[in-house]
Amino acid sequence: MDIKKMLENERVRPYTLKARYGIEKEGQRVDLAGDLAQTDHPETLSVRDEHPYIQRDFSETQMELITPVTESLEELFDYLSAIHDVTYRSMSEQEMLWPLSMPPQLPDKEEDIVIAKLKNVENVLYRQSLSNSYGRRKQMISGIHFNFEFGEELMQALFNSQTEIKDYRQFKTEIYLKVTRNYLHYRWLVTYFYGASPSSEQNFFEEDSLIEPVRSIRSSKYGYTNPDDVQVSYRSIQSYISDLSLMVQKGLLVEEKEYYASVRLRGGHHVSELENKGVRYIELRNIDLNPFETTGISYEQAEFLHLFLIYLLWKDEGNQCDDWVSTGDSYNEAVALEHPLEHTQFEMEAKHIIGEMEHLAKTLDLVVSDTLFENLKEMLEDPSKTLAGRLHKESKKSSQRQVAAYIAKENHKKSWDKPYQLTGFTDMELSTQILMFDAIQQGIKVDILDRQEQFLRLKFKDHIEYVKNGNMTSKDSYISTLIMENKTVTKNILHQHGFRVPIGEEFNDIESALRSYELFSTKPFVVKPKSTNFGLGISIFKEGASYEDYQAAITLAFKEDSAVLVEEFLKGTEYRFFVLDDKVLAILLRTPANILGDGKHTIEELVIEKNRDPLRGKDHRTPLEIIQLGELEKLMLKGQGYEIDSIPRAGETVYLRENSNVSTGGDSIDVTDLISDDYKKIAVDAVAALGAKISGIDLIIEDIKVPASDQDAYGIIEANFNPSMYMHIYPYKGESRRVTMNILHELFPELAVNKISVY
Amino acid sequence: MDIKKMLENERVRPYTLKARYGIEKEGQRVDLAGDLAQTDHPETLSVRDEHPYIQRDFSETQMELITPVTESLEELFDYLSAIHDVTYRSMSEQEMLWPLSMPPQLPDKEEDIVIAKLKNVENVLYRQSLSNSYGRRKQMISGIHFNFEFGEELMQALFNSQTEIKDYRQFKTEIYLKVTRNYLHYRWLVTYFYGASPSSEQNFFEEDSLIEPVRSIRSSKYGYTNPDDVQVSYRSIQSYISDLSLMVQKGLLVEEKEYYASVRLRGGHHVSELENKGVRYIELRNIDLNPFETTGISYEQAEFLHLFLIYLLWKDEGNQCDDWVSTGDSYNEAVALEHPLEHTQFEMEAKHIIGEMEHLAKTLDLVVSDTLFENLKEMLEDPSKTLAGRLHKESKKSSQRQVAAYIAKENHKKSWDKPYQLTGFTDMELSTQILMFDAIQQGIKVDILDRQEQFLRLKFKDHIEYVKNGNMTSKDSYISTLIMENKTVTKNILHQHGFRVPIGEEFNDIESALRSYELFSTKPFVVKPKSTNFGLGISIFKEGASYEDYQAAITLAFKEDSAVLVEEFLKGTEYRFFVLDDKVLAILLRTPANILGDGKHTIEELVIEKNRDPLRGKDHRTPLEIIQLGELEKLMLKGQGYEIDSIPRAGETVYLRENSNVSTGGDSIDVTDLISDDYKKIAVDAVAALGAKISGIDLIIEDIKVPASDQDAYGIIEANFNPSMYMHIYPYKGESRRVTMNILHELFPELAVNKISVY
Repeated sequence: MDIKKMLENERVRPYTLKARYGIEKEGQRVDLAGDLAQTDHPETLSVRDEHPYIQRDFSETQMELITPVTESLEELFDYLSAIHDVTYRSMSEQEMLWPLSMPPQLPDKEEDIVIAKLKNVENVLYRQSLSNSYGRRKQMISGIHFNFEFGEELMQALFNSQTEIKDYRQFKTEIYLKVTRNYLHYRWLVTYFYGASPSSEQNFFEEDSLIEPVRSIRSSKYGYTNPDDVQVSYRSIQSYISDLSLMVQKGLLVEEKEYYASVRLRGGHHVSELENKGVRYIELRNIDLNPFETTGISYEQAEFLHLFLIYLLWKDEGNQCDDWVSTGDSYNEAVALEHPLEHTQFEMEAKHIIGEMEHLAKTLDLVVSDTLFENLKEMLEDPSKTLAGRLHKESKKSSQRQVAAYIAKENHKKSWDKPYQLTGFTDMELSTQILMFDAIQQGIKVDILDRQEQFLRLKFKDHIEYVKNGNMTSKDSYISTLIMENKTVTKNILHQHGFRVPIGEEFNDIESALRSYELFSTKPFVVKPKSTNFGLGISIFKEGASYEDYQAAITLAFKEDSAVLVEEFLKGTEYRFFVLDDKVLAILLRTPANILGDGKHTIEELVIEKNRDPLRGKDHRTPLEIIQLGELEKLMLKGQGYEIDSIPRAGETVYLRENSNVSTGGDSIDVTDLISDDYKKIAVDAVAALGAKISGIDLIIEDIKVPASDQDAYGIIEANFNPSMYMHIYPYKGESRRVTMNILHELFPELAVNKISVY
Repeated sequence: MDIKKMLENERVRPYTLKARYGIEKEGQRVDLAGDLAQTDHPETLSVRDEHPYIQRDFSETQMELITPVTESLEELFDYLSAIHDVTYRSMSEQEMLWPLSMPPQLPDKEEDIVIAKLKNVENVLYRQSLSNSYGRRKQMISGIHFNFEFGEELMQALFNSQTEIKDYRQFKTEIYLKVTRNYLHYRWLVTYFYGASPSSEQNFFEEDSLIEPVRSIRSSKYGYTNPDDVQVSYRSIQSYISDLSLMVQKGLLVEEKEYYASVRLRGGHHVSELENKGVRYIELRNIDLNPFETTGISYEQAEFLHLFLIYLLWKDEGNQCDDWVSTGDSYNEAVALEHPLEHTQFEMEAKHIIGEMEHLAKTLDLVVSDTLFENLKEMLEDPSKTLAGRLHKESKKSSQRQVAAYIAKENHKKSWDKPYQLTGFTDMELSTQILMFDAIQQGIKVDILDRQEQFLRLKFKDHIEYVKNGNMTSKDSYISTLIMENKTVTKNILHQHGFRVPIGEEFNDIESALRSYELFSTKPFVVKPKSTNFGLGISIFKEGASYEDYQAAITLAFKEDSAVLVEEFLKGTEYRFFVLDDKVLAILLRTPANILGDGKHTIEELVIEKNRDPLRGKDHRTPLEIIQLGELEKLMLKGQGYEIDSIPRAGETVYLRENSNVSTGGDSIDVTDLISDDYKKIAVDAVAALGAKISGIDLIIEDIKVPASDQDAYGIIEANFNPSMYMHIYPYKGESRRVTMNILHELFPELAVNKISVY
């Protein structure tokens, strides 16, 4: 096989960069001082051993974050960041993740390192045996595992561009074996650039066996390695399998997965399956945590790895496989133990390889970040730019421990500062971000089917549910949402069921609307287009209206829609009831944008102060919006005799808007506990009458102290089939109601069962 | 109470015309010759005795059509027309409805008149007793019962504008009693204008007891009346109830409902309830069938009745109630027996009343048809313009029997000519009209919640279902329709489930789409906007494309949508599978507009001929559209070397369009029985994978003779959550599949049970 030629084939080239990725990232839980946490794995993660995203590795404090398999690096990092966010905010706010591969200071006594408290007895016993073989300290080292698969189209195209190997599986296996041998030979390059475990913390080594700093303790023999007599050949898949099996037979390994190679061949559940199923992907295991990235690895690093693997596929290997690999081992050991600020002894070869990679990228037209090669060359020229170099240099100013703790705190702050966001997915709607957060936390797999459209697939074990916009699900019938979408039909049905709704009529032309003037003229009434939003075309007459005013209002409304409603105007306050499956989960009162005077500050100052709340932002990226001081607000102030530099009396509330929309700076106030059960029952029964499971239903109540059964105590304005959820979760005032979690439990009732079985 | 003053009250006036209406209309089933039908009540009406719209009256041949209660006359006539349509097309195509109140020729032997074969034994026995008391012939007379209720707001406003009567129910009763006494006094006016039973047919009278013609046999003592000794007073509700009860005690009436008054007081289930519940509405029973209206009554007649009732409310009555009524009886008898072409003896009084009515309408600002008073005055001036006058005049030319048969045939033709339409609701979508037809036929109550939006409430006994656009129902979950609405998500899910879908990618900007050129360049592929319809912005490359063409297509598509799909192009024919609840009900092949040459006629002539099909029309008012001969068609012909006056060879199909949409003149061909079960299973399984119950799923199949399991035998293009139904019911060719009926049975599975219990 002439792989170089194959890679240049016209039918192969469109697919060269197609690949699938996955990351596992370990990290120790520490307290805010940087000491190993004394607490158990967070209880908020209700699924435990089998959590798809967040598990424990060796110890109870060692978090393992697992991304799903993705088809792009962007998506990979989106998930990795999101899982980080969830991990952080599922832990106590008094804890953080240690950003280094080398663990923080360990207990004096090795047995005080707590093995992960897993349910599965075998898994606990396995950890026990590891602890006997290697000692618990070594198992506390963390790192990144980078799972990589060449794209199926690429593999197929390569396969089709040769004739030597007839079997597709065998072909794939040969490809991965070549890449693996080359990776093992050249992996010192990864150690040079991204090795990041220069020094150990207290109690890691029992004696001072190593002169620190180095480039990577973890990648050296002092790190996470098997005894020397564990030898496995990558000559062929058969030798790989039989060698591994021999090591287990000899008792040198407890299980095959105890083989700590820098590359693991993957496919099937068990190594022995590789012969029949072929290698499907490889797992690179020699990646230290990048301390300078919240996620422990940078995008550029991943890009480098991808390109490096293509290069290794392209690059000829040595004739003697086993020698080729073992030479690589010794090169890597040498580089790993170099001083982080020294030039590497293989600098010339490194420059040559980077040059070849750059050339290959150009030849094959592979698009990578502009800065990638620049940065690599810079790191070769200046070792202090490598990760180990940077960490060492920083640590010299104080201590590695202090640097690590500082970084961890920054990451902690980043995650907790905007708890309503899910990093990686901040372009999506807030409610969807929060639902995804909850799903990841609950151990529900989240797939994004259409990102712009907020379309998710959620999967728990074999149970699949699809969700759009956070709460459009299989639980609601199509017709119930169509009913809620249509104001006339909603009112009709609610009225039929005996609920009070504003009495009124629908008109389809101006003339018939005008003819009905006398039906409304003397009462409070409202004229509105049937189906527009944002208040456009609405006129309210609280004391009835003259014929001329009525005519003007009708004309205005017909400009917005071909159907217009004229309705009784209900007096009172509007409350939003969030109803799910016959329960009111939350009630929200929305008030127009306002400030509270203190007798000292101007309105403008008070607005600026109020806008400092991190819940306030712009364009629906935050639960509340910035209060503006535009024309409308100034007009409103003028109406009350104020300018923006007026100083309102202490305790006086000044409104800056007429409308109570959150989107124009309004406040959201949770009043769930203030509203009595009879109103909640009205809301629940009304939603049931519409045949809906999930609804945000708006009630006008004049006085919440009056019983709902009183004449005209309430009126129902409308019911919404895709009610906003974030405003209940992050209200301006009052209790947070995590309705997204209720949605998940509605979709996956088995979650509750699962929870019970765990605790 | 000064009712005249009350009616002029400002707070009463806006509501004067508010009312509720209902019509019952009887009519004899006859064969196409006009002879009484020998057949049983149509079996297509599966609900029998309790059918809400179509029942039998006295005899098996006497259809009784019942409208729901409506709040406008427009709606009343819409329903009445629709129920007529359903009645006609539920009967054998060899039968029609006799348009006269007087029955067609009756059997020589009275006992050959077949009493309605009802399930309920008591009802049969009651008819038996009527037949004993009155003879079967009299019971064969048909007519209209007009149910009328003053609007609730009007009644409330009237009640509030007086102080004499404190009890609202009592007030309503008094109002209806006054109107009733006045109606009985003045009903001769109705008999004059609208009496329409001048002559009897053979065997109605056993001897020639009456000199015909008259104005109304039915309204005279020769019609449908109780013996003279049945006397009931309308003085008060108590006297009404006690008199009726006395008549029954005396054995003069079998039941209270046997009291054949011109007005019946209604409320409650039983007359005795009237005292407590009060009169809720009145039933006018003295209306002859108007032979000149399909529905047996004209809109203007109903308008007259409404206005007449308001007038009778306003008009002072005589002091002696019982005298007032019995004077009315004798006036009416006199007018009923007048010759239809003679002026009435009460012409002066009639003119005075009409004058007063017109004045009242003006004073109270009541809007009525422009021609109403003109026509009334004309009928007074010229008796030959009255209904009886017109019928008699026509009959003199041939015979009443021939006139009636001719009219019946016209009505028959009107109903059968466009069987896809439901008269009264032709502004609604075809599929909805057909579904409404089926629902009415099945005895399901149909309420229109939003006419423009095709929003229906269906009710069978206590079971309510809502339907929008014919098949958007409670059976589908919201998310499954959202899945189908989103092409990317649909493909993703179908692909995940192992179905073949066109492989492709979604792009959100031009640049990334252009970068992926090489992925598609050499294969057949399609570029299309993600969510537009009507083919806008779609480019098909059946042999791959140059970069320039690809670029142009991408640019074009992005003009239509912010997301663009580039997909593999599947070769083959597109079939629409209509799937309901895991069954394929229909498969349709759509072909572009075309004509079949005969070697004699020009293309233009062949198009004109093909367009004569009553299934073809314009603007989706018919199942198929007219084939146009516009620019596009001419261009298409030119491409094949034709002009519109070319004469294609016999047997040659000439296509006039590229696209196969029915909306541009395409043909729809039912191929349900031609497609093998393996493809049907694919369609059913794919719809199930989308979680849907109702879907129109489009499969591309290259060769239907190849098994579906073959490599690339089929591909799924899209699934539609609101699939068109009418095209399966009225295809251009092939069997009709009445999928609307399946929808009804899906919504109301109890219908099947009901059916079994009846037969």
